[in-house]
Amino acid sequence: MSLIVQKYGGTSVADIEHIRNVASRVTKTYDQGNDVVVILSAMAGITDRLIGMAREASENPDKRELDVLLATGEQTTSALLAMILNSMDYPAQSLMGHQAEVVTDHCFGNARIVDIRTDRIKELLRQRHVVVIAGFQGCDPRGNITTLGRGGSDTSAVAIASALEADVCEIFTDVDGIYTADPNICEKARKLKAISYDEMLNMASLGAKVLQIRSVGFAKKYNIPVHVRSSFTEEEGTMVVNEDSGMERLVVSGVTHDQNQARITLKKVPDQPGVAAKIFTPIAEAGIVVDMIIQNTRAGGQTDLTFTVPRASYKTAIEIEKKVAAEIGAEDVFGDEQIAKVSVIGVGMKDHSGVASTMFSTLAAENINIILISTSEIRISCIIEEKYTELAVRVLHSAFGLDAGS
Amino acid sequence: MSLIVQKYGGTSVADIEHIRNVASRVTKTYDQGNDVVVILSAMAGITDRLIGMAREASENPDKRELDVLLATGEQTTSALLAMILNSMDYPAQSLMGHQAEVVTDHCFGNARIVDIRTDRIKELLRQRHVVVIAGFQGCDPRGNITTLGRGGSDTSAVAIASALEADVCEIFTDVDGIYTADPNICEKARKLKAISYDEMLNMASLGAKVLQIRSVGFAKKYNIPVHVRSSFTEEEGTMVVNEDSGMERLVVSGVTHDQNQARITLKKVPDQPGVAAKIFTPIAEAGIVVDMIIQNTRAGGQTDLTFTVPRASYKTAIEIEKKVAAEIGAEDVFGDEQIAKVSVIGVGMKDHSGVASTMFSTLAAENINIILISTSEIRISCIIEEKYTELAVRVLHSAFGLDAGS
Repeated sequence: MSLIVQKYGGTSVADIEHIRNVASRVTKTYDQGNDVVVILSAMAGITDRLIGMAREASENPDKRELDVLLATGEQTTSALLAMILNSMDYPAQSLMGHQAEVVTDHCFGNARIVDIRTDRIKELLRQRHVVVIAGFQGCDPRGNITTLGRGGSDTSAVAIASALEADVCEIFTDVDGIYTADPNICEKARKLKAISYDEMLNMASLGAKVLQIRSVGFAKKYNIPVHVRSSFTEEEGTMVVNEDSGMERLVVSGVTHDQNQARITLKKVPDQPGVAAKIFTPIAEAGIVVDMIIQNTRAGGQTDLTFTVPRASYKTAIEIEKKVAAEIGAEDVFGDEQIAKVSVIGVGMKDHSGVASTMFSTLAAENINIILISTSEIRISCIIEEKYTELAVRVLHSAFGLDAGS
Repeated sequence: MSLIVQKYGGTSVADIEHIRNVASRVTKTYDQGNDVVVILSAMAGITDRLIGMAREASENPDKRELDVLLATGEQTTSALLAMILNSMDYPAQSLMGHQAEVVTDHCFGNARIVDIRTDRIKELLRQRHVVVIAGFQGCDPRGNITTLGRGGSDTSAVAIASALEADVCEIFTDVDGIYTADPNICEKARKLKAISYDEMLNMASLGAKVLQIRSVGFAKKYNIPVHVRSSFTEEEGTMVVNEDSGMERLVVSGVTHDQNQARITLKKVPDQPGVAAKIFTPIAEAGIVVDMIIQNTRAGGQTDLTFTVPRASYKTAIEIEKKVAAEIGAEDVFGDEQIAKVSVIGVGMKDHSGVASTMFSTLAAENINIILISTSEIRISCIIEEKYTELAVRVLHSAFGLDAGS
């Protein structure tokens, strides 16, 4: 008998029929003798509809009150699932964030979980109840309703699983696992049986939008096995686990790509203390998130500095930097929106030399020019011309032995 | 400076535009230097929509979970009003039932308020916040969400007003006050400036669907002045107050009618102990609410027994009683759906003789036959043929000096 936490996303609870399917899955797990805690998202589209309502009420809705409004989404699905389970004669009870005592800080709209008191959940489990918890929400120490930010239900699930020392946290979603590459552009992509937390962290930040990145950090910190799987099939998905847990050791576990990229270069920047701050402070103040930053040394006390931003922020960013360039005496500012980032990710890299050179020579063999390079311990990312994205993913996927059947 | 509790019903918060109107009214009261606590209902129609959703999920939805679901309606409107107030630069905070510490018993769907701890509300008022409280909901001592039954927001408002010792509880609704009769059938009906709690209790139960009856009982118990008024005009409405509070003393304050009536008579019932129980137990078990019960003595150890039920229950009730009549040896069962109840109500009756005889002779003068009579300390009700309803209301209204301009 295990303690299993299951999280179902918005598409899995899109309407009553879908919630009934969730109920079948939950009771199946329960009937196997397991204790089951279910975390639910709001129905697909509801959160956006509520945000629309809030914007109709106020251009800049009060953050505390917005959380009160948004919390109704998960309250609705949780009550409905508990009703359906009860009508199937499975004892079930819904708990809102404050009832499950998911205590957060008071950063409305993006709160962090600071504590989960599990007494009530454990008591219900002892009575063999299915416990249905509204995801995405908590309450601050004063009892104000808070929400955890987009995709926060994943974080709710992993945090509750860790507080309960659950055997596994199953994330049911509309994809059936984590792939070695996007199957839409790489037909030889295959589903991974397992992936490490660190690899998943890199996958998530590079565009594999399966798990909220904060939830992966939580899972890693508390060593909670996370099973990412489809709510529409019975198939096993992908386990996200500690890298020492006996998983298959691939040098490279996946190839990701991100086309939401634009590049800005400041040419011949005077190489003086404080100049980087002058370049990036106004960008940050405009709310633009910078991804890669690369600085090359040049002769003569001057340097070229390149960075990437989301494509939607490109025009704003380049206007800001034109002013900055004039102030600091840089020679020129130019940029490019037709770029993409291709990355290879794998914990195996730590022990293997040659991954970078294989990547570079593979791209070179296809005449794909590398514009920028950035590396971390378990990831190598290259900025290339956007038109080569699909080709680059496919040839790298082959080169690192990831092709299905290889 | 006063402490004013304002309650707005579903039609007053039907959409964002309506909620904006509520905000204007609230800020006007606030700007006059008053402390303002606002109690809101769900948007008109939402509670029914949620109940529909619950019935789709389960034929007989779990009562605890139904309350969790229904509570989202008031949560939504409360968050939206608080947002709008904040965006108008009026500090405002919403509180759900559990945050306002509206403690109830655990009778889900029809909970009774047992305690309201007002510390948090008072603290917010001290900081000159507008406090917006979700009506209709509370929580039991274990923190489960409960609801107070249909129209429960009125009860929330009066209960919170009494806990806060508010100066007045204003009930904003879609009618502009309490009338001496239904203006739709009696054009000389006029709005009452004031009415006593007891009269209002009789009015409410007789069909003037303005205030939830339980809220009036609460107001009476704690002596909270209730001001029933329209949310669409600036006019004063009707004060519901203690009868000793210097209000105008009319002998009769109003004439009400109720056409949702049917009558059932059991003829020649053996006059034995236990026979009434045999007649009414199966009716109660079928969930039918009996209104009037009248028993006439007959000679020879037999009696005729007549009672009234809501018209929708008539067919079921008469079938039940046919079986009962056979068992107990009553001679016959017959009934009538074409009846109506006309009542005159007034605390002044206590000190005035002749009200009954005025009523009977007024009806007699129009050849309206009285089928049944029932009286209480401040009310006389007559069952008459339905077709005479409007005429009866008009002539009684005149006879008791209630006509506008008289």
